Amino acid sequence: MPRNGLIDPRIGFIGIGLMGLPLCRRLLDADFALTVWNRHPDKCEPLLMLGAQQAASPATLVEGVDIIFLCVSDTAAVEQIVCGRDGLLTALQPGQIIIDLSSIDPAVTRQLAGLVQEKDAHWIDAPVSGGVMGAESGTLVIMAGGDADIIDRARPVLGALSQRVTHMGPSGAGQVTKICNQLIVAANAVLIAEAVALAEKAGVDAAKLAPALAGGFADSKPFQLLAPRMSARTFTPVQWRVQTLLKDLDMATALAQHCQSATPLAQAAAGLMREHAEQGHMSDDLSSLITLFAGEKPSC
Amino acid sequence: MPRNGLIDPRIGFIGIGLMGLPLCRRLLDADFALTVWNRHPDKCEPLLMLGAQQAASPATLVEGVDIIFLCVSDTAAVEQIVCGRDGLLTALQPGQIIIDLSSIDPAVTRQLAGLVQEKDAHWIDAPVSGGVMGAESGTLVIMAGGDADIIDRARPVLGALSQRVTHMGPSGAGQVTKICNQLIVAANAVLIAEAVALAEKAGVDAAKLAPALAGGFADSKPFQLLAPRMSARTFTPVQWRVQTLLKDLDMATALAQHCQSATPLAQAAAGLMREHAEQGHMSDDLSSLITLFAGEKPSC
Repeated sequence: MPRNGLIDPRIGFIGIGLMGLPLCRRLLDADFALTVWNRHPDKCEPLLMLGAQQAASPATLVEGVDIIFLCVSDTAAVEQIVCGRDGLLTALQPGQIIIDLSSIDPAVTRQLAGLVQEKDAHWIDAPVSGGVMGAESGTLVIMAGGDADIIDRARPVLGALSQRVTHMGPSGAGQVTKICNQLIVAANAVLIAEAVALAEKAGVDAAKLAPALAGGFADSKPFQLLAPRMSARTFTPVQWRVQTLLKDLDMATALAQHCQSATPLAQAAAGLMREHAEQGHMSDDLSSLITLFAGEKPSC
Repeated sequence: MPRNGLIDPRIGFIGIGLMGLPLCRRLLDADFALTVWNRHPDKCEPLLMLGAQQAASPATLVEGVDIIFLCVSDTAAVEQIVCGRDGLLTALQPGQIIIDLSSIDPAVTRQLAGLVQEKDAHWIDAPVSGGVMGAESGTLVIMAGGDADIIDRARPVLGALSQRVTHMGPSGAGQVTKICNQLIVAANAVLIAEAVALAEKAGVDAAKLAPALAGGFADSKPFQLLAPRMSARTFTPVQWRVQTLLKDLDMATALAQHCQSATPLAQAAAGLMREHAEQGHMSDDLSSLITLFAGEKPSC
Protein backbone atom coordinates (compact mmCIF):
# COMPACT_ATOMS: atom_id res chain seq x y z
CA MET A 1 0.00 0.00 0.00
CA PRO A 2 1.43 3.40 -0.88
CA ARG A 3 1.99 5.61 2.16
CA ASN A 4 1.48 8.97 0.49
CA GLY A 5 2.32 11.78 2.87
CA LEU A 6 2.60 9.44 5.87
CA ILE A 7 5.66 9.53 8.10
CA ASP A 8 7.58 6.78 9.90
CA PRO A 9 7.34 5.00 12.28
CA ARG A 10 4.11 3.09 11.65
CA ILE A 11 1.85 2.99 14.71
CA GLY A 12 -0.50 0.40 16.18
CA PHE A 13 -3.01 1.44 18.84
CA ILE A 14 -4.98 -0.97 21.04
CA GLY A 15 -7.86 0.33 23.16
CA ILE A 16 -10.15 2.86 21.48
CA GLY A 17 -11.96 4.20 24.54
CA LEU A 18 -12.53 7.66 26.03
CA MET A 19 -8.77 8.30 26.11
CA GLY A 20 -7.68 6.18 23.10
CA LEU A 21 -10.00 7.88 20.62
CA PRO A 22 -8.67 11.46 21.00
CA LEU A 23 -5.08 10.18 21.23
CA CYS A 24 -5.50 8.31 17.92
CA ARG A 25 -6.94 11.44 16.35
CA ARG A 26 -3.77 13.29 17.40
CA LEU A 27 -1.58 10.59 15.79
CA LEU A 28 -3.56 10.80 12.53
CA ASP A 29 -3.36 14.61 12.62
CA ALA A 30 0.44 14.23 12.88
CA ASP A 31 0.39 12.09 9.70
CA PHE A 32 1.39 8.79 11.28
CA ALA A 33 0.15 5.60 9.58
CA LEU A 34 -2.19 4.11 12.19
CA THR A 35 -3.60 0.60 12.64
CA VAL A 36 -6.12 0.12 15.45
CA TRP A 37 -7.70 -2.74 17.36
CA ASN A 38 -10.42 -2.73 19.98
CA ARG A 39 -12.26 -5.53 21.80
CA HIS A 40 -15.53 -4.10 20.49
CA PRO A 41 -14.54 -3.43 16.84
CA ASP A 42 -17.27 -0.83 16.14
CA LYS A 43 -15.52 1.64 18.48
CA CYS A 44 -12.84 1.96 15.76
CA GLU A 45 -15.21 3.30 13.09
CA PRO A 46 -14.69 7.07 13.64
CA LEU A 47 -10.95 6.49 13.14
CA LEU A 48 -11.33 4.39 9.96
CA MET A 49 -13.13 7.36 8.39
CA LEU A 50 -10.05 9.45 9.19
CA GLY A 51 -7.68 7.02 7.45
CA ALA A 52 -6.79 4.43 10.10
CA GLN A 53 -6.59 0.70 9.27
CA GLN A 54 -8.30 -1.90 11.47
CA ALA A 55 -6.58 -5.13 12.53
CA ALA A 56 -8.42 -8.41 13.21
CA SER A 57 -6.43 -9.16 16.40
CA PRO A 58 -3.52 -7.81 18.46
CA ALA A 59 -1.29 -10.38 16.72
CA THR A 60 -2.20 -9.20 13.20
CA LEU A 61 -1.84 -5.55 14.32
CA VAL A 62 1.77 -6.25 15.33
CA GLU A 63 2.74 -7.42 11.85
CA GLY A 64 2.65 -4.07 10.07
CA VAL A 65 3.82 -1.58 12.71
CA ASP A 66 6.92 -0.34 14.56
CA ILE A 67 5.38 1.00 17.77
CA ILE A 68 2.33 -0.45 19.56
CA PHE A 69 0.37 1.66 22.05
CA LEU A 70 -1.84 0.04 24.68
CA CYS A 71 -4.55 2.15 26.34
CA VAL A 72 -6.92 -0.18 28.20
CA SER A 73 -8.74 -0.29 31.51
CA ASP A 74 -6.68 -2.41 33.90
CA THR A 75 -3.90 -4.90 34.58
CA ALA A 76 -5.94 -7.95 33.48
CA ALA A 77 -6.80 -6.33 30.14
CA VAL A 78 -3.14 -5.58 29.41
CA GLU A 79 -2.11 -9.13 30.36
CA GLN A 80 -4.80 -10.59 28.07
CA ILE A 81 -3.74 -8.45 25.10
CA VAL A 82 -0.06 -9.27 25.57
CA CYS A 83 -0.12 -12.93 26.66
CA GLY A 84 -3.57 -14.20 25.52
CA ARG A 85 -4.59 -16.10 22.40
CA ASP A 86 -3.70 -14.02 19.31
CA GLY A 87 -1.91 -11.70 21.74
CA LEU A 88 1.08 -9.46 21.01
CA LEU A 89 3.69 -11.98 22.17
CA THR A 90 2.66 -14.50 19.47
CA ALA A 91 3.80 -12.12 16.70
CA LEU A 92 6.25 -9.66 18.29
CA GLN A 93 9.45 -9.01 16.29
CA PRO A 94 12.89 -7.81 17.51
CA GLY A 95 13.13 -4.04 17.77
CA GLN A 96 9.41 -3.38 18.10
CA ILE A 97 8.38 -1.05 20.95
CA ILE A 98 5.27 -1.47 23.11
CA ILE A 99 4.20 1.70 24.92
CA ASP A 100 1.62 1.01 27.64
CA LEU A 101 -0.44 4.12 28.40
CA SER A 102 -2.72 2.12 30.74
CA SER A 103 -2.46 2.49 34.52
CA ILE A 104 -1.56 -0.95 35.86
CA ASP A 105 0.37 -2.83 38.55
CA PRO A 106 4.11 -1.98 38.34
CA ALA A 107 5.09 -5.55 39.27
CA VAL A 108 3.09 -6.93 36.31
CA THR A 109 4.64 -4.19 34.15
CA ARG A 110 8.12 -5.48 35.01
CA GLN A 111 7.06 -9.10 34.27
CA LEU A 112 5.62 -8.15 30.87
CA ALA A 113 8.70 -6.03 30.08
CA GLY A 114 10.81 -9.14 30.79
CA LEU A 115 8.74 -11.33 28.46
CA VAL A 116 8.98 -8.73 25.70
CA GLN A 117 12.73 -8.36 26.21
CA GLU A 118 13.13 -12.14 25.63
CA LYS A 119 11.95 -11.42 22.07
CA ASP A 120 14.48 -8.55 21.75
CA ALA A 121 11.57 -6.10 21.73
CA HIS A 122 11.00 -3.21 24.16
CA TRP A 123 8.41 -2.17 26.77
CA ILE A 124 7.82 1.39 27.93
CA ASP A 125 5.30 2.02 30.72
CA ALA A 126 3.81 5.45 30.10
CA PRO A 127 0.66 6.04 32.17
CA VAL A 128 -0.96 9.44 31.80
CA SER A 129 -2.72 12.07 33.94
CA GLY A 130 -5.01 14.82 32.74
CA GLY A 131 -8.18 13.07 31.61
CA VAL A 132 -10.05 13.25 28.31
CA MET A 133 -9.54 17.01 28.12
CA GLY A 134 -5.78 16.53 28.42
CA ALA A 135 -5.86 13.83 25.73
CA GLU A 136 -7.77 16.09 23.35
CA SER A 137 -5.63 19.17 23.93
CA GLY A 138 -2.25 17.42 23.96
CA THR A 139 -1.52 18.48 27.53
CA LEU A 140 -1.44 15.07 29.23
CA VAL A 141 1.25 14.45 31.81
CA ILE A 142 3.07 11.26 30.64
CA MET A 143 5.17 9.42 33.26
CA ALA A 144 7.54 7.03 31.50
CA GLY A 145 9.49 4.04 32.82
CA GLY A 146 12.01 1.92 30.93
CA ASP A 147 15.22 2.27 28.94
CA ALA A 148 16.06 5.96 28.33
CA ASP A 149 17.36 5.20 24.81
CA ILE A 150 14.11 3.54 23.79
CA ILE A 151 12.04 6.40 25.24
CA ASP A 152 14.18 8.85 23.27
CA ARG A 153 13.60 6.78 20.11
CA ALA A 154 9.83 7.00 20.73
CA ARG A 155 9.82 10.71 21.62
CA PRO A 156 8.80 11.96 18.14
CA VAL A 157 5.66 9.79 18.42
CA LEU A 158 5.01 10.51 22.12
CA GLY A 159 5.41 14.19 21.27
CA ALA A 160 2.31 13.97 19.05
CA LEU A 161 0.35 12.94 22.16
CA SER A 162 1.88 15.48 24.59
CA GLN A 163 5.01 17.56 25.12
CA ARG A 164 4.90 16.63 28.82
CA VAL A 165 6.84 13.32 28.79
CA THR A 166 9.20 12.65 31.74
CA HIS A 167 11.46 9.62 32.16
CA MET A 168 11.02 8.60 35.81
CA GLY A 169 13.35 5.60 36.02
CA PRO A 170 13.60 1.93 34.97
CA SER A 171 10.72 -0.31 33.90
CA GLY A 172 7.72 0.20 36.20
CA ALA A 173 8.80 3.68 37.37
CA GLY A 174 6.10 5.29 35.24
CA GLN A 175 3.42 3.14 36.88
CA VAL A 176 4.83 3.89 40.35
CA THR A 177 4.71 7.62 39.59
CA LYS A 178 1.09 7.35 38.44
CA ILE A 179 0.20 5.53 41.67
CA CYS A 180 1.86 8.31 43.72
CA ASN A 181 -0.05 10.89 41.64
CA GLN A 182 -3.35 9.12 42.32
CA LEU A 183 -2.54 8.70 46.01
CA ILE A 184 -2.37 12.49 46.29
CA VAL A 185 -5.46 13.10 44.13
CA ALA A 186 -7.67 10.57 45.94
CA ALA A 187 -6.64 11.36 49.51
CA ASN A 188 -6.72 15.10 48.81
CA ALA A 189 -10.34 14.66 47.63
CA VAL A 190 -11.21 13.31 51.10
CA LEU A 191 -9.40 16.28 52.69
CA ILE A 192 -11.35 18.68 50.47
CA ALA A 193 -14.60 17.03 51.59
CA GLU A 194 -13.57 17.42 55.25
CA ALA A 195 -12.75 21.10 54.69
CA VAL A 196 -15.96 21.90 52.76
CA ALA A 197 -18.11 20.16 55.41
CA LEU A 198 -16.30 21.99 58.22
CA ALA A 199 -16.65 25.35 56.46
CA GLU A 200 -20.40 24.80 55.99
CA LYS A 201 -21.02 23.75 59.57
CA ALA A 202 -19.00 26.72 60.87
CA GLY A 203 -21.10 29.25 58.96
CA VAL A 204 -19.14 29.82 55.75
CA ASP A 205 -20.79 30.11 52.35
CA ALA A 206 -19.06 27.01 50.94
CA ALA A 207 -20.02 27.90 47.35
CA LYS A 208 -17.46 30.71 47.63
CA LEU A 209 -14.55 28.48 48.71
CA ALA A 210 -13.28 27.67 45.19
CA PRO A 211 -13.22 31.27 43.91
CA ALA A 212 -11.97 32.63 47.26
CA LEU A 213 -9.02 30.22 47.56
CA ALA A 214 -8.12 30.07 43.83
CA GLY A 215 -4.39 30.48 43.32
CA GLY A 216 -3.63 30.07 47.03
CA PHE A 217 -1.76 27.32 48.83
CA ALA A 218 -4.85 25.10 49.33
CA ASP A 219 -5.75 25.31 45.65
CA SER A 220 -5.45 22.52 43.05
CA LYS A 221 -7.35 21.39 39.96
CA PRO A 222 -9.30 18.84 42.06
CA PHE A 223 -10.18 21.62 44.56
CA GLN A 224 -11.60 23.79 41.77
CA LEU A 225 -13.55 20.84 40.31
CA LEU A 226 -14.75 19.24 43.55
CA ALA A 227 -15.43 22.04 46.07
CA PRO A 228 -18.26 23.68 44.05
CA ARG A 229 -19.86 20.27 43.30
CA MET A 230 -19.56 19.25 46.96
CA SER A 231 -21.13 22.51 48.07
CA ALA A 232 -23.98 22.12 45.53
CA ARG A 233 -24.36 18.36 46.26
CA THR A 234 -23.91 17.52 42.54
CA PHE A 235 -22.78 13.90 42.31
CA THR A 236 -23.16 12.93 38.63
CA PRO A 237 -19.79 11.65 37.42
CA VAL A 238 -17.64 14.19 35.57
CA GLN A 239 -13.95 13.68 36.09
CA TRP A 240 -13.68 10.80 38.59
CA ARG A 241 -15.86 7.96 39.86
CA VAL A 242 -15.45 6.78 43.46
CA GLN A 243 -14.66 3.21 42.29
CA THR A 244 -11.75 4.39 40.12
CA LEU A 245 -10.03 6.35 42.85
CA LEU A 246 -10.70 3.60 45.39
CA LYS A 247 -8.92 1.17 43.05
CA ASP A 248 -6.05 3.67 42.82
CA LEU A 249 -5.78 3.98 46.61
CA ASP A 250 -5.81 0.17 46.92
CA MET A 251 -2.93 -0.01 44.40
CA ALA A 252 -1.06 2.62 46.42
CA THR A 253 -1.46 0.78 49.72
CA ALA A 254 -0.51 -2.54 48.09
CA LEU A 255 2.63 -0.97 46.60
CA ALA A 256 3.42 0.64 49.97
CA GLN A 257 3.16 -2.75 51.69
CA HIS A 258 5.38 -4.33 49.04
CA CYS A 259 8.03 -1.57 49.41
CA GLN A 260 7.72 -1.37 53.23
CA SER A 261 6.79 2.32 52.98
CA ALA A 262 4.36 3.85 55.49
CA THR A 263 1.36 5.68 53.98
CA PRO A 264 -0.91 6.21 57.00
CA LEU A 265 -3.06 9.02 55.54
CA ALA A 266 -3.52 7.26 52.20
CA GLN A 267 -4.54 4.09 54.03
CA ALA A 268 -7.04 6.00 56.17
CA ALA A 269 -8.36 7.68 53.01
CA ALA A 270 -8.81 4.25 51.38
CA GLY A 271 -10.81 3.07 54.39
CA LEU A 272 -13.05 6.15 54.29
CA MET A 273 -13.56 5.82 50.54
CA ARG A 274 -14.44 2.11 50.85
CA GLU A 275 -17.01 2.96 53.55
CA HIS A 276 -18.39 5.64 51.23
CA ALA A 277 -18.58 3.24 48.26
CA GLU A 278 -20.38 0.65 50.40
CA GLN A 279 -22.98 3.29 51.30
CA GLY A 280 -24.05 3.22 47.64
CA HIS A 281 -21.74 5.80 46.09
CA MET A 282 -19.51 3.41 44.06
CA SER A 283 -20.54 4.92 40.70
CA ASP A 284 -20.97 8.50 41.91
CA ASP A 285 -18.60 11.38 41.32
CA LEU A 286 -15.83 11.89 43.86
CA SER A 287 -17.72 15.02 44.96
CA SER A 288 -20.18 12.69 46.77
CA LEU A 289 -17.48 12.24 49.46
CA ILE A 290 -19.01 15.32 51.12
CA THR A 291 -21.85 13.06 52.38
CA LEU A 292 -19.34 11.27 54.64
CA PHE A 293 -18.96 14.47 56.67
CA ALA A 294 -22.07 16.58 56.04
CA GLY A 295 -25.75 15.90 55.40
CA GLU A 296 -28.06 17.88 53.16
CA LYS A 297 -26.92 21.21 51.81
CA PRO A 298 -27.81 23.93 54.32
CA SER A 299 -30.74 25.97 53.07
CA CYS A 300 -29.49 29.26 54.49
CA MET B 1 -1.05 68.49 59.87
CA PRO B 2 -1.55 69.15 56.16
CA ARG B 3 -2.28 66.00 54.19
CA ASN B 4 -0.81 67.05 50.86
CA GLY B 5 -1.63 64.48 48.21
CA LEU B 6 -2.92 61.97 50.75
CA ILE B 7 -6.31 60.32 50.28
CA ASP B 8 -9.01 59.29 52.73
CA PRO B 9 -9.57 57.20 54.78
CA ARG B 10 -6.69 57.51 57.26
CA ILE B 11 -5.15 54.14 58.15
CA GLY B 12 -3.65 52.69 61.32
CA PHE B 13 -1.59 49.50 61.13
CA ILE B 14 -0.59 47.38 64.12
CA GLY B 15 1.98 44.61 63.68
CA ILE B 16 4.99 45.43 61.50
CA GLY B 17 6.34 41.93 60.90
CA LEU B 18 7.21 39.87 57.82
CA MET B 19 3.70 40.40 56.44
CA GLY B 20 2.88 43.80 57.92
CA LEU B 21 5.93 45.55 56.49
CA PRO B 22 5.22 44.91 52.78
CA LEU B 23 1.48 45.51 53.32
CA CYS B 24 2.22 48.94 54.87
CA ARG B 25 4.49 49.73 51.92
CA ARG B 26 1.56 49.00 49.59
CA LEU B 27 -0.70 51.37 51.60
CA LEU B 28 1.91 54.14 51.45
CA ASP B 29 2.39 53.52 47.71
CA ALA B 30 -1.37 54.02 47.32
CA ASP B 31 -1.08 57.43 49.07
CA PHE B 32 -2.97 56.57 52.23
CA ALA B 33 -2.01 58.46 55.39
CA LEU B 34 -0.55 55.73 57.62
CA THR B 35 0.09 55.55 61.37
CA VAL B 36 1.82 52.43 62.67
CA TRP B 37 2.45 50.73 65.99
CA ASN B 38 4.54 47.70 66.84
CA ARG B 39 5.42 46.01 70.14
CA HIS B 40 9.11 46.49 69.24
CA PRO B 41 9.03 50.12 68.00
CA ASP B 42 12.25 49.92 65.96
CA LYS B 43 10.54 47.60 63.45
CA CYS B 44 8.57 50.67 62.28
CA GLU B 45 11.64 52.64 61.19
CA PRO B 46 11.71 51.66 57.48
CA LEU B 47 8.11 52.90 57.22
CA LEU B 48 8.76 56.22 58.99
CA MET B 49 11.33 56.98 56.30
CA LEU B 50 8.57 56.45 53.71
CA GLY B 51 6.23 58.91 55.40
CA ALA B 52 4.36 56.90 58.03
CA GLN B 53 3.66 58.29 61.53
CA GLN B 54 4.38 56.22 64.63
CA ALA B 55 1.93 55.95 67.54
CA ALA B 56 2.96 55.46 71.18
CA SER B 57 0.27 52.84 71.86
CA PRO B 58 -2.72 51.16 70.18
CA ALA B 59 -4.96 53.64 72.03
CA THR B 60 -3.16 56.71 70.66
CA LEU B 61 -3.07 55.16 67.17
CA VAL B 62 -6.87 54.92 67.22
CA GLU B 63 -7.29 58.65 67.78
CA GLY B 64 -6.23 59.84 64.34
CA VAL B 65 -7.46 57.13 61.96
CA ASP B 66 -10.60 55.71 60.33
CA ILE B 67 -9.53 52.11 59.70
CA ILE B 68 -7.23 50.03 61.93
CA PHE B 69 -5.47 46.96 60.56
CA LEU B 70 -4.18 44.24 62.88
CA CYS B 71 -1.54 41.83 61.59
CA VAL B 72 -0.05 39.93 64.54
CA SER B 73 1.02 36.40 65.37
CA ASP B 74 -1.83 34.76 67.28
CA THR B 75 -5.09 34.97 69.22
CA ALA B 76 -3.45 36.12 72.47
CA ALA B 77 -1.66 38.98 70.71
CA VAL B 78 -4.90 40.23 69.15
CA GLU B 79 -6.73 40.03 72.50
CA GLN B 80 -3.94 41.98 74.21
CA ILE B 81 -3.97 44.74 71.59
CA VAL B 82 -7.75 45.08 71.68
CA CYS B 83 -8.58 44.55 75.36
CA GLY B 84 -5.27 45.22 77.15
CA ARG B 85 -3.99 48.37 78.90
CA ASP B 86 -3.84 51.22 76.34
CA GLY B 87 -5.65 48.85 73.99
CA LEU B 88 -7.95 49.75 71.10
CA LEU B 89 -11.16 49.47 73.16
CA THR B 90 -10.07 52.26 75.51
CA ALA B 91 -10.17 54.80 72.65
CA LEU B 92 -12.41 53.35 69.94
CA GLN B 93 -14.95 55.77 68.43
CA PRO B 94 -18.30 55.02 66.71
CA GLY B 95 -17.90 54.23 62.98
CA GLN B 96 -14.26 53.15 63.17
CA ILE B 97 -13.44 49.86 61.43
CA ILE B 98 -10.97 47.26 62.73
CA ILE B 99 -9.75 44.83 60.05
CA ASP B 100 -7.93 41.84 61.57
CA LEU B 101 -5.55 40.25 59.04
CA SER B 102 -4.19 37.89 61.71
CA SER B 103 -5.15 34.19 61.71
CA ILE B 104 -6.91 33.57 65.03
CA ASP B 105 -9.64 31.57 66.75
CA PRO B 106 -13.04 32.32 65.14
CA ALA B 107 -14.82 32.13 68.51
CA VAL B 108 -12.55 34.84 69.94
CA THR B 109 -13.11 36.82 66.73
CA ARG B 110 -16.87 36.80 67.35
CA GLN B 111 -16.34 37.87 71.00
CA LEU B 112 -14.10 40.76 70.00
CA ALA B 113 -16.50 41.78 67.22
CA GLY B 114 -19.26 41.93 69.86
CA LEU B 115 -17.18 44.15 72.17
CA VAL B 116 -16.38 46.48 69.30
CA GLN B 117 -20.02 46.61 68.21
CA GLU B 118 -20.96 47.80 71.73
CA LYS B 119 -18.97 50.95 70.87
CA ASP B 120 -20.83 51.29 67.54
CA ALA B 121 -17.59 50.42 65.75
CA HIS B 122 -17.01 47.50 63.34
CA TRP B 123 -14.86 44.37 63.16
CA ILE B 124 -13.88 42.59 59.95
CA ASP B 125 -11.91 39.34 60.16
CA ALA B 126 -9.74 39.15 57.06
CA PRO B 127 -7.01 36.51 57.36
CA VAL B 128 -4.77 36.05 54.34
CA SER B 129 -3.03 33.28 52.42
CA GLY B 130 -0.08 33.63 50.07
CA GLY B 131 2.88 34.42 52.29
CA VAL B 132 5.38 37.27 52.14
CA MET B 133 5.61 36.98 48.35
CA GLY B 134 1.84 37.43 48.07
CA ALA B 135 1.98 40.43 50.42
CA GLU B 136 4.71 42.08 48.35
CA SER B 137 3.09 41.43 44.99
CA GLY B 138 -0.49 42.27 46.01
CA THR B 139 -1.73 38.76 45.22
CA LEU B 140 -2.77 37.64 48.71
CA VAL B 141 -5.99 35.70 49.04
CA ILE B 142 -8.07 37.63 51.63
CA MET B 143 -10.97 35.74 53.27
CA ALA B 144 -13.32 38.22 54.91
CA GLY B 145 -16.01 37.75 57.55
CA GLY B 146 -18.43 40.35 58.88
CA ASP B 147 -21.06 42.79 57.65
CA ALA B 148 -21.06 43.01 53.84
CA ASP B 149 -21.72 46.77 53.91
CA ILE B 150 -18.70 47.43 56.09
CA ILE B 151 -16.49 45.23 53.90
CA ASP B 152 -17.68 47.16 50.86
CA ARG B 153 -16.88 50.43 52.64
CA ALA B 154 -13.34 49.14 53.28
CA ARG B 155 -12.83 47.73 49.76
CA PRO B 156 -10.89 50.73 48.38
CA VAL B 157 -8.34 50.22 51.17
CA LEU B 158 -8.34 46.40 51.01
CA GLY B 159 -7.87 46.73 47.26
CA ALA B 160 -4.49 48.38 47.85
CA LEU B 161 -3.42 45.16 49.62
CA SER B 162 -4.93 42.69 47.13
CA GLN B 163 -7.67 42.42 44.50
CA ARG B 164 -8.50 38.94 45.84
CA VAL B 165 -10.96 39.81 48.66
CA THR B 166 -13.94 37.45 49.13
CA HIS B 167 -16.75 37.89 51.66
CA MET B 168 -17.26 34.42 53.14
CA GLY B 169 -20.10 35.07 55.60
CA PRO B 170 -20.77 36.70 58.98
CA SER B 171 -18.20 37.57 61.65
CA GLY B 172 -15.68 34.71 62.04
CA ALA B 173 -16.34 33.25 58.57
CA GLY B 174 -13.01 34.60 57.32
CA GLN B 175 -11.17 32.87 60.15
CA VAL B 176 -13.08 29.62 59.51
CA THR B 177 -12.14 29.77 55.82
CA LYS B 178 -8.48 30.30 56.71
CA ILE B 179 -8.61 27.27 59.02
CA CYS B 180 -10.11 25.15 56.21
CA ASN B 181 -7.40 26.45 53.88
CA GLN B 182 -4.67 25.47 56.35
CA LEU B 183 -6.30 22.09 57.01
CA ILE B 184 -5.83 21.27 53.32
CA VAL B 185 -2.29 22.73 53.12
CA ALA B 186 -1.00 20.96 56.24
CA ALA B 187 -2.58 17.54 55.65
CA ASN B 188 -1.68 17.65 51.96
CA ALA B 189 1.95 18.20 53.00
CA VAL B 190 1.83 14.89 54.88
CA LEU B 191 0.31 13.20 51.80
CA ILE B 192 3.07 14.66 49.62
CA ALA B 193 5.66 13.22 52.02
CA GLU B 194 3.99 9.79 51.84
CA ALA B 195 3.98 9.93 48.03
CA VAL B 196 7.60 11.11 47.70
CA ALA B 197 8.81 8.40 50.12
CA LEU B 198 6.83 5.71 48.29
CA ALA B 199 8.13 6.86 44.90
CA GLU B 200 11.73 6.72 46.13
CA LYS B 201 11.41 3.28 47.70
CA ALA B 202 9.72 1.95 44.55
CA GLY B 203 12.59 3.03 42.30
CA VAL B 204 11.47 6.41 40.98
CA ASP B 205 13.83 9.39 40.66
CA ALA B 206 11.89 11.53 43.16
CA ALA B 207 13.71 14.70 42.10
CA LYS B 208 11.70 14.49 38.87
CA LEU B 209 8.28 14.31 40.56
CA ALA B 210 7.64 18.07 40.69
CA PRO B 211 8.50 18.79 37.04
CA ALA B 212 6.84 15.56 35.85
CA LEU B 213 3.51 16.17 37.60
CA ALA B 214 3.40 19.96 37.15
CA GLY B 215 -0.01 21.07 35.92
CA GLY B 216 -1.59 17.67 36.57
CA PHE B 217 -4.25 16.68 39.09
CA ALA B 218 -1.78 15.97 41.92
CA ASP B 219 -0.13 19.35 41.49
CA SER B 220 -0.38 22.35 43.83
CA LYS B 221 1.88 25.18 44.99
CA PRO B 222 2.87 23.16 48.10
CA PHE B 223 3.70 20.16 45.88
CA GLN B 224 6.02 22.29 43.73
CA LEU B 225 7.66 23.80 46.83
CA LEU B 226 7.88 20.68 49.00
CA ALA B 227 8.51 17.69 46.70
CA PRO B 228 11.95 18.89 45.47
CA ARG B 229 13.02 19.85 49.03
CA MET B 230 11.78 16.51 50.37
CA SER B 231 13.67 14.65 47.64
CA ALA B 232 16.85 16.65 48.33
CA ARG B 233 16.39 16.44 52.14
CA THR B 234 16.58 20.26 52.45
CA PHE B 235 14.90 21.24 55.72
CA THR B 236 15.85 24.89 56.33
CA PRO B 237 12.61 26.86 56.74
CA VAL B 238 11.40 28.68 53.63
CA GLN B 239 7.64 28.92 53.42
CA TRP B 240 6.35 26.97 56.43
CA ARG B 241 7.67 25.77 59.78
CA VAL B 242 6.32 22.52 61.25
CA GLN B 243 5.17 24.33 64.43
CA THR B 244 3.02 26.80 62.44
CA LEU B 245 1.14 24.16 60.48
CA LEU B 246 0.78 21.98 63.57
CA LYS B 247 -0.88 24.94 65.30
CA ASP B 248 -3.15 25.31 62.26
CA LEU B 249 -4.14 21.63 62.34
CA ASP B 250 -4.85 21.91 66.07
CA MET B 251 -7.14 24.89 65.37
CA ALA B 252 -8.88 22.86 62.64
CA THR B 253 -9.50 19.85 64.89
CA ALA B 254 -10.69 22.12 67.74
CA LEU B 255 -13.12 23.89 65.39
CA ALA B 256 -14.29 20.51 64.04
CA GLN B 257 -15.01 19.31 67.58
CA HIS B 258 -16.86 22.51 68.36
CA CYS B 259 -18.99 22.22 65.18
CA GLN B 260 -19.46 18.43 65.48
CA SER B 261 -17.85 17.95 62.07
CA ALA B 262 -15.74 14.84 61.36
CA THR B 263 -12.22 15.50 60.05
CA PRO B 264 -10.56 12.07 60.33
CA LEU B 265 -7.69 12.67 57.87
CA ALA B 266 -6.88 16.10 59.30
CA GLN B 267 -6.84 14.62 62.81
CA ALA B 268 -4.53 11.81 61.70
CA ALA B 269 -2.32 14.38 59.99
CA ALA B 270 -2.17 16.40 63.23
CA GLY B 271 -1.07 13.28 65.13
CA LEU B 272 1.66 12.52 62.59
CA MET B 273 2.86 16.12 62.59
CA ARG B 274 2.98 16.23 66.40
CA GLU B 275 5.05 13.02 66.43
CA HIS B 276 7.33 14.61 63.85
CA ALA B 277 7.69 17.83 65.88
CA GLU B 278 8.53 15.81 69.00
CA GLN B 279 11.32 14.08 67.09
CA GLY B 280 13.10 17.45 66.96
CA HIS B 281 11.64 18.97 63.80
CA MET B 282 9.50 21.71 65.43
CA SER B 283 11.45 24.57 63.80
CA ASP B 284 12.26 22.77 60.54
CA ASP B 285 10.62 23.34 57.20
CA LEU B 286 7.52 21.28 56.41
CA SER B 287 9.68 19.41 53.86
CA SER B 288 11.23 17.57 56.84
CA LEU B 289 8.00 15.50 57.04
CA ILE B 290 9.70 13.15 54.55
CA THR B 291 11.75 11.75 57.46
CA LEU B 292 8.55 10.27 58.94
CA PHE B 293 8.35 7.90 55.97
CA ALA B 294 11.85 7.60 54.51
CA GLY B 295 15.39 7.66 55.87
CA GLU B 296 18.45 9.11 54.19
CA LYS B 297 18.22 10.13 50.55
CA PRO B 298 19.05 7.11 48.37
CA SER B 299 22.52 7.47 46.87
CA CYS B 300 21.64 5.79 43.58
